[in-house]
Amino acid sequence: MTKTVTLAIDCMGGDYGPPATIPAALTALDRYPDLHLILVGDEAQIQERLRAKHAENHARVRIRHTTQVVAMDDKPSVALRSKKDSSMRIALQLVRDGDAQACVSAGNTGALMAVARFVIKMLPGVDRPAICTKLPTASGHCHMLDLGANVDCEAEALFQFAVMGSVVARAVDGLSSPTVALLNVGSEEIKGNDQVKKAAALLSQTPAINYKGYVEGDGIYAGEADVIVCDGFVGNAVLKASEGIVKMVMEMLRAEFKRNILHKLFALVAMPVLKAFKHRVNPDQYNGASLVGLDGIVIKSHGGASEAAIVFAIEAAIKEVHFNVPQKIKSELESILVSRAEA
Amino acid sequence: MTKTVTLAIDCMGGDYGPPATIPAALTALDRYPDLHLILVGDEAQIQERLRAKHAENHARVRIRHTTQVVAMDDKPSVALRSKKDSSMRIALQLVRDGDAQACVSAGNTGALMAVARFVIKMLPGVDRPAICTKLPTASGHCHMLDLGANVDCEAEALFQFAVMGSVVARAVDGLSSPTVALLNVGSEEIKGNDQVKKAAALLSQTPAINYKGYVEGDGIYAGEADVIVCDGFVGNAVLKASEGIVKMVMEMLRAEFKRNILHKLFALVAMPVLKAFKHRVNPDQYNGASLVGLDGIVIKSHGGASEAAIVFAIEAAIKEVHFNVPQKIKSELESILVSRAEA
Repeated sequence: MTKTVTLAIDCMGGDYGPPATIPAALTALDRYPDLHLILVGDEAQIQERLRAKHAENHARVRIRHTTQVVAMDDKPSVALRSKKDSSMRIALQLVRDGDAQACVSAGNTGALMAVARFVIKMLPGVDRPAICTKLPTASGHCHMLDLGANVDCEAEALFQFAVMGSVVARAVDGLSSPTVALLNVGSEEIKGNDQVKKAAALLSQTPAINYKGYVEGDGIYAGEADVIVCDGFVGNAVLKASEGIVKMVMEMLRAEFKRNILHKLFALVAMPVLKAFKHRVNPDQYNGASLVGLDGIVIKSHGGASEAAIVFAIEAAIKEVHFNVPQKIKSELESILVSRAEA
Repeated sequence: MTKTVTLAIDCMGGDYGPPATIPAALTALDRYPDLHLILVGDEAQIQERLRAKHAENHARVRIRHTTQVVAMDDKPSVALRSKKDSSMRIALQLVRDGDAQACVSAGNTGALMAVARFVIKMLPGVDRPAICTKLPTASGHCHMLDLGANVDCEAEALFQFAVMGSVVARAVDGLSSPTVALLNVGSEEIKGNDQVKKAAALLSQTPAINYKGYVEGDGIYAGEADVIVCDGFVGNAVLKASEGIVKMVMEMLRAEFKRNILHKLFALVAMPVLKAFKHRVNPDQYNGASLVGLDGIVIKSHGGASEAAIVFAIEAAIKEVHFNVPQKIKSELESILVSRAEA
């Protein structure tokens, strides 16, 4: 890390609040000597957790006291109208006002997206924001968007997601020209709906994007592209179904290992392997979805994220700050519009 | 089985043709003494395979010779216009003409759907056909539709899928009142698109359907409903992504077991467990998707289905014949329309 980065941490968000966010914040501070944090939330609770780690006078920590918390089941409208002193909103305002370069929150996605759009605003030229996350693949990982911010998407929105996802992949993975694909259905007769077909035409005409065509659902995990683009309904369904079937398979495997005495013996020797596997596809390292399309960096941590997982979300924020993701998205879209106008 | 069932088997369809379909047909005949089969395809090839199993004079087998084959990559338009003597088309005509009560084909889905619509026609009152398949869940299995026949679906189409899926679940599983759910996104702000919301309203007003509300992607595999309804784009993406991530997880597990000498030893003892697991979620038993909405029973087997898997598809066809699925769908939709008109 070569220059100072200041992040606002919504310490009250998520299922656990300060007991998870404060230790994660301190681990990140240890790891990144140029990192400064503004811890946003109830000062007494934050101080208590800092004291527990002997960090009450940390030189790179500032506390911003707030009096309200956005609950995990608060409607976006409630978060917007009735919680103007929430840790979530103040953390976003710190980004808007330039006091912090990015914000990390484990608060509920709907509220975070709504408040972020209101406080930080959209980038000029971006029609819809999107949720972009990392997913494991056979060969590493990919970035997929949208994961649920938009249930209906026109071709132009899918096109913009492709541009934004491409910038995120460059920021997070250091790829110079990440491959981008549209998620589509594979049946012969019906290669996609109108939106996908039109988005494909737009992407084919854009040299700035390394567009490689359609992928089907299995292509996501086969690692067929660095960036996978779809509307938020499809993305959300695919992501949650994927989590659901892996959970089912792991539970069935565990049950199978326990089904009889012989298998129980096998289980004793096999468990280290299952654990090693779990470490390899460690969901913690996929924590930290990016809300793209906003005029500022907002990283969403899982609500149930552990301390280790929150550190990954903070690291994602640092990478996006260094790469200046919103500025890159803005200039990329501008230059694409210019070349379209010239064509 | 209490009465004679006659099925038409498209023997040439799928990746393997007669070497897979003929042994499967003979196994099914052994298992079901009241089953009669019309084997449709190249007579010489069929005879050769029957002779190999000493079944050239099977009393419950009839051969219907055809001269053409629909290839796995044939476009629906090619199958329709240029292959009027294909095994697929003739098998469907046998259903249309009442010579067979159902047809089983491993041919390509797009072609099968197009030719079936042309030859057998849709049920009156059904707007769109759908592909319905069984998926494993933590507690057993569910039926999901549509899996790719329709990329865009209005609320009325989703509603009809719910009715049709409910009939299939009753036929295949013997459930008296299967629960039906709409697949939806979970984010607070945006509970579904317009189509899903309108379909939910229609289903809530229909006492004949045991509608239980929305499920998210993970709810499919958690067994939250017996029937899951979505449009074909979402269904196809979810199904293929699910297959893809399970494949990735199993390959990673296998690699993990082989990573070092110690793990190799573990692998020796763990492999029987992995094999037992594979048997338990045996994909063969999920073979046999139902093309619903047609005025006849058409079962689609996987193109790469093994002999054992094709037997499952034949069994699915027998169950649908006994339950008279198309007639039940027709009368159910009619009585719903009547009660809507009265309301």
